[in-house]
Amino acid sequence: MKTNPGRFFEDYRIGDVIRHAVPRTVKMGERAMYHALYPARHALYSSDAFAQSCGLPFSPLDDLIAFHVVFGKTVPDVSLNAVANLGYAEGRWLQPVWPGDTLRSESTVIGLKENSNGKSGNVYVRTIGLNQHDEPVLEYVRWVMVRKNDPAAPAPAPIVPELKTSVPASDLVIPKGLDFTNYDFTLAGEPHRWGDYAIGERIDHVDGVTIEEAEHMIATRLWQNTAKVHFDATFREDGKRLIYGGHVISMARALSFNGLANAQMIVALNGGAHANPCFAGDTIKAWSEVLDRADTPAPGVGALRLRLVAVKQGAKPFALKGEDGKYLPETLLDLDYWALIPK
Amino acid sequence: MKTNPGRFFEDYRIGDVIRHAVPRTVKMGERAMYHALYPARHALYSSDAFAQSCGLPFSPLDDLIAFHVVFGKTVPDVSLNAVANLGYAEGRWLQPVWPGDTLRSESTVIGLKENSNGKSGNVYVRTIGLNQHDEPVLEYVRWVMVRKNDPAAPAPAPIVPELKTSVPASDLVIPKGLDFTNYDFTLAGEPHRWGDYAIGERIDHVDGVTIEEAEHMIATRLWQNTAKVHFDATFREDGKRLIYGGHVISMARALSFNGLANAQMIVALNGGAHANPCFAGDTIKAWSEVLDRADTPAPGVGALRLRLVAVKQGAKPFALKGEDGKYLPETLLDLDYWALIPK
Amino acid sequence: MKTNPGRFFEDYRIGDVIRHAVPRTVKMGERAMYHALYPARHALYSSDAFAQSCGLPFSPLDDLIAFHVVFGKTVPDVSLNAVANLGYAEGRWLQPVWPGDTLRSESTVIGLKENSNGKSGNVYVRTIGLNQHDEPVLEYVRWVMVRKNDPAAPAPAPIVPELKTSVPASDLVIPKGLDFTNYDFTLAGEPHRWGDYAIGERIDHVDGVTIEEAEHMIATRLWQNTAKVHFDATFREDGKRLIYGGHVISMARALSFNGLANAQMIVALNGGAHANPCFAGDTIKAWSEVLDRADTPAPGVGALRLRLVAVKQGAKPFALKGEDGKYLPETLLDLDYWALIPK
Repeated sequence: MKTNPGRFFEDYRIGDVIRHAVPRTVKMGERAMYHALYPARHALYSSDAFAQSCGLPFSPLDDLIAFHVVFGKTVPDVSLNAVANLGYAEGRWLQPVWPGDTLRSESTVIGLKENSNGKSGNVYVRTIGLNQHDEPVLEYVRWVMVRKNDPAAPAPAPIVPELKTSVPASDLVIPKGLDFTNYDFTLAGEPHRWGDYAIGERIDHVDGVTIEEAEHMIATRLWQNTAKVHFDATFREDGKRLIYGGHVISMARALSFNGLANAQMIVALNGGAHANPCFAGDTIKAWSEVLDRADTPAPGVGALRLRLVAVKQGAKPFALKGEDGKYLPETLLDLDYWALIPK
Repeated sequence: MKTNPGRFFEDYRIGDVIRHAVPRTVKMGERAMYHALYPARHALYSSDAFAQSCGLPFSPLDDLIAFHVVFGKTVPDVSLNAVANLGYAEGRWLQPVWPGDTLRSESTVIGLKENSNGKSGNVYVRTIGLNQHDEPVLEYVRWVMVRKNDPAAPAPAPIVPELKTSVPASDLVIPKGLDFTNYDFTLAGEPHRWGDYAIGERIDHVDGVTIEEAEHMIATRLWQNTAKVHFDATFREDGKRLIYGGHVISMARALSFNGLANAQMIVALNGGAHANPCFAGDTIKAWSEVLDRADTPAPGVGALRLRLVAVKQGAKPFALKGEDGKYLPETLLDLDYWALIPK
Repeated sequence: MKTNPGRFFEDYRIGDVIRHAVPRTVKMGERAMYHALYPARHALYSSDAFAQSCGLPFSPLDDLIAFHVVFGKTVPDVSLNAVANLGYAEGRWLQPVWPGDTLRSESTVIGLKENSNGKSGNVYVRTIGLNQHDEPVLEYVRWVMVRKNDPAAPAPAPIVPELKTSVPASDLVIPKGLDFTNYDFTLAGEPHRWGDYAIGERIDHVDGVTIEEAEHMIATRLWQNTAKVHFDATFREDGKRLIYGGHVISMARALSFNGLANAQMIVALNGGAHANPCFAGDTIKAWSEVLDRADTPAPGVGALRLRLVAVKQGAKPFALKGEDGKYLPETLLDLDYWALIPK
């Protein structure tokens, strides 16, 4: 058999290092497409001149481009037979990705726990994205529930890694040279700076975008994520194509420009849940909550820890969870990240 | 409140200069997308080699890319609360936009006139697009009807600028170095030159394109135009997304290749009306009328003043206005521009 | 009449050389779009670093980008009035297309045969694609059935060129410098090498993609192929837009990654049939058959002759033709090509 059947739960071993195919050179074409698929307007990723005014040599590729490219490569090895994408933790952007960089991914199996039904188990991997110099650009932990191929395969000794609930502010990596002391708030689009955001403050980002099949498939392919369920309308019994969770992440993040235009760079992913599936025809809106604030050693640069929530049509303002503590049916995404913002 | 509520009629003052966010670096990715979204084939914008044979260092970005990028930036400050986009005048392309240029926009309020109902008023702005050297690349006047937030706000002294009905040929700016004396009509696609077009001549461009939601949203986001009405199917009561008028402009202009393949560069926008709204599913066709001809000092370069009309399915040949002088329901766009064409 | 009516059967003469409009510079933007429209993952076209490890200066543009660009230019002169696209033969990729190259096309009429009904005839053209140095990058023969405009026009002396059923392996042109001796099978995505494929072996590529209107139109425009039937929903009586056959070719080729990840470069097109029309909403799957194997003089480089079949929903495994020897209604494409693969 020449085609890839994907890995099943019993195929993983603690300590396995998986070098993922296929390396990918990313340039301005990918950036143009990203900005056409999402209403992305953060100035640092839009303008070379603006990035230079912030101490960078030119505009890097969007932080989430890096994430999607690195993530997409892991799909054939990690989630082809996944039942569910359970969580993210300890994500950190380690250096910008520049146009022309070639990215590849490696994952290490750091946790395994078979479910009590004996039909599946949870696999924890720590993934790093590397550039053409073999320098890490991104790392994160992800865990997924994966089917067993042979229900009789013996359960491995359960190992569940201890994961931080949030990346400590002191562990955030600030891009070399970043300096917000000459930041132009007018060109960036909003006057609000680090000190203007209070812990607990919530922001309704107001705008909405209705999702199309062509758009989520174009986006998902751009990251070489080829999971059938996103592309093949004959795959699910209901004839629907499930939208890649990363599409919702990027849409919500772009929508958050309206109210968080100066939260320029994502530098850590503390956690995240894809609360409900998203399908074409859904209209996505977003809101944010300020979870924490931290100073950084870089000139003029502060950090905000933000909850980013994506909801769909019918959601009430700031909808998240019900009284039972479970996500409401209109909640699509609950993401927890750190972003850099001028002080 | 952190999100942008947009400006209302009473928020504008004559002489106000608005520096619009967000600067944008445009490169070959944007060009590739433009040529994928529209059947754009004018040789000067398609081939570096062809552009070099016309005296340019290489192929500039399409004239309408410059327009859309500059226009898109003005939306959050000018038309977020607009009821209608009323007109354009005195538009001039002042120099080509090259791949790698970073564009930003500034608008000056040059006219204000409250409507007699006291609920809205017309705002006139002169917008300039600037590159990273702060050199102007484009200027135009646009006026829009904007809602008042507070109906009790006092009406300003009415000022309506005097605007030229057409840019005089002597004011057209010819790109530096442009020389059509070695123009290759075969490679450009048609044999018709300046002298072959007569004032009053009309050309049916024959081809049609049916519009998709994904395409107009991708295009509109590419120019960072984020007006809700284009993206959010829950925004209008009829559940339709209104298509950005610039999408119709670019589609009609690209369709006009068939019959005007040598009308290479748009150098002035004399006026324009978005006669009726356009929605996904509409099939756009176009026709042109030669309004005027002028010589230019550049070698081999003539200018045509053209009316470009976009119509939708059901339109009769050369449909424009009815006997009552009003636009027919099938008329989408009535644009008046100057283009450069080899003599 | 200023618009292009296209050529009719009686307008072709044996030996006519047609220089097609419009030359096109292709760069990384076109590559990014190609990889967003198709699940293209062959490593040589995805990563500069991988291409360098295979002896190339950097990653060339996908072989099918070259094909589509060269083909698209011929449409206004060859197939605007075509009733059917009948076949391909003797296609060879002669050198890689690099980002920044400008492509144009020329076709020579090599065969003419009027049909017995006197209403149409077959036109055979040999097309070459040329870069900005006037060096050939691609050549192929294509024949189409074209309508006559004047049924009374006299039939030309019938000339049907003798065409090879397959490009001999000795005629394959290997890109200069290509060397697969240090090929990294892990990064490429699969362990299967030339010696692992047996003549007669068939591979079901498993994955499927449902086709959207926006996607096939974006793709087709990207190659400046502007045939009405692909874009105008009012053109056909059934209101359907016929999908450009090349869209199906690229989709099937990209799907064949799963099982043929190492069949990196297409170097010859032996033949091909668009067996049935494809419409938006169809779900495309693909399978391949190994038709032949050949060695090449390049280090570590072998060649496989492959049949690539695209089918739509409802097709049985390895569906192709019925007992009557005719293509089954679910068969969309039957393509015969040579690809280079590491030994």
